[in-house]
Amino acid sequence: MGFKRKLREAAAENNSLLCIGLDPDPERLPCGLTIAQFNRMIIEATSDLVCAYKPNLAFYEAHGLEGLRALEQTISCIPAGIPIIGDAKRGDIGNTARHYARALYDSFGFDATTLSPYLGLDSIEPFISYADRGVFLLCRTSNPSSKDFQDLKIEGQPLYEYVAFKALEWNIHGNIGLVVGATYPQELARIRQLCPTMCLLVPGVGTQGGDMEAVVRFGTDESGANAIINVSRAVLYASSGSDFATAARMSAIRLRDEMNLHRVAG
Amino acid sequence: MGFKRKLREAAAENNSLLCIGLDPDPERLPCGLTIAQFNRMIIEATSDLVCAYKPNLAFYEAHGLEGLRALEQTISCIPAGIPIIGDAKRGDIGNTARHYARALYDSFGFDATTLSPYLGLDSIEPFISYADRGVFLLCRTSNPSSKDFQDLKIEGQPLYEYVAFKALEWNIHGNIGLVVGATYPQELARIRQLCPTMCLLVPGVGTQGGDMEAVVRFGTDESGANAIINVSRAVLYASSGSDFATAARMSAIRLRDEMNLHRVAG
Repeated sequence: MGFKRKLREAAAENNSLLCIGLDPDPERLPCGLTIAQFNRMIIEATSDLVCAYKPNLAFYEAHGLEGLRALEQTISCIPAGIPIIGDAKRGDIGNTARHYARALYDSFGFDATTLSPYLGLDSIEPFISYADRGVFLLCRTSNPSSKDFQDLKIEGQPLYEYVAFKALEWNIHGNIGLVVGATYPQELARIRQLCPTMCLLVPGVGTQGGDMEAVVRFGTDESGANAIINVSRAVLYASSGSDFATAARMSAIRLRDEMNLHRVAG
Repeated sequence: MGFKRKLREAAAENNSLLCIGLDPDPERLPCGLTIAQFNRMIIEATSDLVCAYKPNLAFYEAHGLEGLRALEQTISCIPAGIPIIGDAKRGDIGNTARHYARALYDSFGFDATTLSPYLGLDSIEPFISYADRGVFLLCRTSNPSSKDFQDLKIEGQPLYEYVAFKALEWNIHGNIGLVVGATYPQELARIRQLCPTMCLLVPGVGTQGGDMEAVVRFGTDESGANAIINVSRAVLYASSGSDFATAARMSAIRLRDEMNLHRVAG
């Protein structure tokens, strides 16, 4: 089953726009658990509440081969119906990009990945040619320094909008989406206006401070769908004690319900 | 010893601007060798001819944990005096970038890495704060699609030049360099003019077709140094037979000598 359908079905089944970012920080893991054990318990506590999971590869690569083994174990714990977005933000010349696509789609088996746009179309083509997988191009990221380059004006239009236009132009397989930070609601609204039917991956709710109502209103399409709203730390570390999995579940329920409250009925 | 000094000493010792890109493609490995075996033989045949080695992580990640084990083995084969640039092109928000820096500098132990600029300063800070390591920001990449975004004009100035200016501004630890493709000699000349003392990492000679004389003339600084000229396929696959290591050595000697021919005496 392709990524888009898998996402749509998981979002409908769990009535959820919530994506949990599986970004385990060893300094914050409770009860002496390993990364793989922690993730498994988070997944078991939340898999009926999410539309997707999104492990960020940095948190695994930081621990070398052992960390990547924990990522493989984590992937194998996620129920088959829930799509997995490998947040890798890769971007390299065409010949090299083919190898990254193989790593992310074939070796890890991710349903979708995130990519940096800086190298242009030939860096993205090897990914979008996997027509059953998803690609989320970085457009307006959630961090404070995103303005350094993404806000630069090209004939009056900010670079991130130009990236959104290119994403529309390149979307011949219908599998390109955009990453737009929840911390910039006006920019999110503008991108939703430019790309009314595109899937938007929206990180930055929770610890990063994005406003939930604006994120849901501007992030979703006119049917109240097609947005993946990612929360990492506010779920993973809802409690630092032995009740962390229950606390993560409570936090995920609260976030999912708050998102649904602001959603237009589909 | 810091990256800059290690690079300077290796370049002087081997009288070389040549960096060999260790990008092993399993379909092209001779004699049924594994990636680690092939790389070891390439390194043994060339380590007195280079100023650095540059493994691109995509070629290892494509093979999962086994590929990353081969990368670790490869790193351990490289003589201690030769700097190793982990070509990773990462770029993520600050909190995540810290983990990538740990992966590349602490876990793999690279002396330097390549980074994408798209997320701005907070994505780069965790790397440059390792003052003894190097960072090469993608500026004007060697691929045909680099024009898609990098050539866009910001008040008349192309984006890649704007990136070069930011690199100058952010270079408080003196450990930032730039990646500029050999396939764009005019752009390379312009960046060398803007950044007269910065170290430039120049891929795209050989298979990608960059012109050697222009690359050396425009890539080096006024003392004929401070450029790392990378060649991958033209060395690794100089022969597809059992004489591949000897052929790689011959190719590396030819490339190094051709570079030196065009160099201003230091």
